[in-house]
Amino acid sequence: MDMLWNGWGDPAKAAPLPESVTGLLRDLLGVKPRTTPALRLDDIDLPATTAGPAAFKALAEAVGGDDDRVRTDNESRIRHTRGKSTPDLLRIRAGDFSDVPQAVVLPASHDEVLAVLRACSAHGLAVVPFGGGTSVVGGLAPRRTAFVALDLRRMNGLIDLDPVSRTAVLQPGLRAPEAEALLAEHGFTLGHFPQSFEWATIGGFAAARSSGQASAGYGRFDEMVLGLSLATPEGTIETGRAPRSAAGPDLRQLILGSEGAFGVITSVTVRVRPLPQARVYEGWRFASFEGGAAALRKLAQDGPRPTVLRLSDETETLIGLAQPDAIGGDLSQSAAGCLAITGYEGTAADTAQRREQAAAVLTACGGTLVGAEPGERWAQGRFSAPYLRDALLDVGAFAETLETAAFWSRIPDLYTAVRTALTDTLTEAGTPPLVMCHISHVYENGASLYFTVVSAQGEDPVAHWTPAKHAANEAVLAAGGTISHHHGVGTDHRDWYVREAGPLGISALRAVKRRLDPEGLLNPGVLLPTD
Amino acid sequence: MDMLWNGWGDPAKAAPLPESVTGLLRDLLGVKPRTTPALRLDDIDLPATTAGPAAFKALAEAVGGDDDRVRTDNESRIRHTRGKSTPDLLRIRAGDFSDVPQAVVLPASHDEVLAVLRACSAHGLAVVPFGGGTSVVGGLAPRRTAFVALDLRRMNGLIDLDPVSRTAVLQPGLRAPEAEALLAEHGFTLGHFPQSFEWATIGGFAAARSSGQASAGYGRFDEMVLGLSLATPEGTIETGRAPRSAAGPDLRQLILGSEGAFGVITSVTVRVRPLPQARVYEGWRFASFEGGAAALRKLAQDGPRPTVLRLSDETETLIGLAQPDAIGGDLSQSAAGCLAITGYEGTAADTAQRREQAAAVLTACGGTLVGAEPGERWAQGRFSAPYLRDALLDVGAFAETLETAAFWSRIPDLYTAVRTALTDTLTEAGTPPLVMCHISHVYENGASLYFTVVSAQGEDPVAHWTPAKHAANEAVLAAGGTISHHHGVGTDHRDWYVREAGPLGISALRAVKRRLDPEGLLNPGVLLPTD
Repeated sequence: MDMLWNGWGDPAKAAPLPESVTGLLRDLLGVKPRTTPALRLDDIDLPATTAGPAAFKALAEAVGGDDDRVRTDNESRIRHTRGKSTPDLLRIRAGDFSDVPQAVVLPASHDEVLAVLRACSAHGLAVVPFGGGTSVVGGLAPRRTAFVALDLRRMNGLIDLDPVSRTAVLQPGLRAPEAEALLAEHGFTLGHFPQSFEWATIGGFAAARSSGQASAGYGRFDEMVLGLSLATPEGTIETGRAPRSAAGPDLRQLILGSEGAFGVITSVTVRVRPLPQARVYEGWRFASFEGGAAALRKLAQDGPRPTVLRLSDETETLIGLAQPDAIGGDLSQSAAGCLAITGYEGTAADTAQRREQAAAVLTACGGTLVGAEPGERWAQGRFSAPYLRDALLDVGAFAETLETAAFWSRIPDLYTAVRTALTDTLTEAGTPPLVMCHISHVYENGASLYFTVVSAQGEDPVAHWTPAKHAANEAVLAAGGTISHHHGVGTDHRDWYVREAGPLGISALRAVKRRLDPEGLLNPGVLLPTD
Repeated sequence: MDMLWNGWGDPAKAAPLPESVTGLLRDLLGVKPRTTPALRLDDIDLPATTAGPAAFKALAEAVGGDDDRVRTDNESRIRHTRGKSTPDLLRIRAGDFSDVPQAVVLPASHDEVLAVLRACSAHGLAVVPFGGGTSVVGGLAPRRTAFVALDLRRMNGLIDLDPVSRTAVLQPGLRAPEAEALLAEHGFTLGHFPQSFEWATIGGFAAARSSGQASAGYGRFDEMVLGLSLATPEGTIETGRAPRSAAGPDLRQLILGSEGAFGVITSVTVRVRPLPQARVYEGWRFASFEGGAAALRKLAQDGPRPTVLRLSDETETLIGLAQPDAIGGDLSQSAAGCLAITGYEGTAADTAQRREQAAAVLTACGGTLVGAEPGERWAQGRFSAPYLRDALLDVGAFAETLETAAFWSRIPDLYTAVRTALTDTLTEAGTPPLVMCHISHVYENGASLYFTVVSAQGEDPVAHWTPAKHAANEAVLAAGGTISHHHGVGTDHRDWYVREAGPLGISALRAVKRRLDPEGLLNPGVLLPTD
């Protein structure tokens, strides 16, 4: 099944907002109903392709000669235009197809990927590796140039499973649910559950350094990766002979986060874990975000570590975004304070022990156990927030998310700085926003902050949002945060990423890119500047 | 205090071998007493320096103008000649000073390091960053060229401690015991205890991806590092705004393991942990190495994780190398089988809980608790093996170590392959060796193997050993291991490292080096080939 071309996910799962929410939007944020009719897929006229028949012939030969593996029809090209950020959706809904690929190419193997890169080099086409298409940072919109989308969906196998070492070799085009199903046949799980879980792919997780909702227990995706194969215009890199090594810099960590700019990831060796026997999620309430964060820090530093550990701030708790299925319920039911979700997955004994010991810590830190219901509601609604965004956009509201991370001591200032930047900028622009935040990834030494912004749309919604996003980026850097904890760099964060990494660091990465991709075919302008 | 110039450690701690051991060497390995008298420091004539007075003047200006900070005396130059591998010691004892530096330069700050790099560039001198001087892989012996040793001992401060984030900023020239003492004043520990602990430095740990004996609990050094500053001939790289980030490739992991070839590490931000309240070490016995390894794997994969977890094979157990202080005791006391050491450090409650639960796992895996004595003896003797090597060399024996790591399923074949390669090569050369092995670092997905070889010395001991070392390297690659788990690459492993990383991977790293060190001043020939 293909994802909705102008929104998120499975079209059958779309649901209109309850009247209580539309009332809230109208009364609190001044959202006015949209009046322009929605664009229909069949009505779209795409710019003609500029690549000639020789280029398409070479691409078809690279992927085995089958015409169906080089798709130039309107629908295929539209479905591979940009990713799923709010600006991406707004642009496509407004009929802006300036970032449409020339063609969609579907290789089936590492060697076919190498052949596609050769064909693109020969015909002056850029290449955008395409997994689930779920980038929210402009990772699929290269510098304006003729490019093909390299869709990895045919590379969707489990290549090897080593139950002794607990490792699996996965192909990059596997969507996360497919990977989980293949591993489950052998009794294993990857344990990677980002919000994009239902659509995103293994290769995309690696390329963008994804982190999932159970990262406290299973780790980030980059921590799960033990080996990678990379196809580049200059050949192949294979990494990962051991879990850890002192043999030079870690090349895996150079490929992870390279966002298709260094090469195409064609296989990923990951650690796997036994399927959990038990899963428990529950809710805790804290009087303040600061107090709740201190409790999360205590667990992250001294243990025991839950598998899932999240904390919503007061606003997010009040609105109920922690349980998207419950939004629009009776607000008076939401007691003041901040809701935390704790989850435990593992053997029955281990789960029970960690839960009991963590409960003692959380109680000592001032938390009150609310019970299983908020946890179960969070678990049920954990992948549904993007559907909610679509519904908000449909009724004329603006909704977007952004995220960062920092060391613990900087978290309070970072929280205030980003919130203030978003609130001030959008308020000055005449659309005072609702800004919500949660901590969803914790480490011994720091945590992530994930912000959700909802406001009325401006006249030109993308142009209206851009200054607020830039102000948030500036606030992140000024307060000592990283420009992204798990969404990545893409084109949206690139200029701030360049400042974060510094001129010499960026220059070193550009030297790597020039060596692996001397013609600059791969994702030009994504991650690294082109000039 | 300076380390022994032609051996390991504190000269006052040197001790002759007990007669029982010399008997063992004579009867089992055919070791014949050395007859050449030992070289005395005062008798050494060094090759004259080739750098002129202008170079030394420029270096002195770079470090503040004080003559004592640019040392050209014989003793300083000798003490900065090569590292502490057995071939290094054999060469220096034989009066081979072909790798002696022109001078020893002692900068006190990041800016002075940058100034030294500029002075070296102006005068055509290469630069070898020098921490504790404990490399055992030729990391301090660059391609033959005029070079200065950049000794970081004056950069030995604790720059910042953040008790909330549990991070510390350390200067690179801090020796590990100095770092531990500074952190202990604030109630924290780094928890990094490699065998080189008493002499090695923070910068060296980072540059060479060190791993300590408590890695099961505290992690490898590269896992402790949260940020790095790097001084290069082209300027500065600063990394680490958050524990984890999705902002591009992880530049920290490009600097870690760069062995001075990309730049000089001038500060290291590390995670720290509260000083343990309790420490318990004990011994377990397994019938076989295979059975013991399965038990270690069970703990590494399913927990609970001890802080220290090691297993000696049958030969190492028999000889008693796990407890160096006990070597030469009554061999009949050593029951057959394999000795494992488990250690637990942390709060009293956590230590007790992990110990109890791990004991149940080890017992279920066929282990027998031997009690606290072997654990305590291991802990007391944990840093003394290099002294033992000196004593062996003194009596005419040869002793060296090497190590690797792989995924669990490859460990049995890797063990056999390396053992066989060493045994066959040295036996064919007329000096049948004793080959011992232990597992000292475990991961969910694999483990390290650490080999110790003892034999009679050949006529030319370095030339005699070289084919055996090369055969071991070939066996490591063929059996799917990494060429080093924690010693690093240096010059000794470089040619095998190049094959492990592959031509394109190496080429990407050389592109980084060219960008940061275009004149090739830094550790030429270490880590990466020069041509």
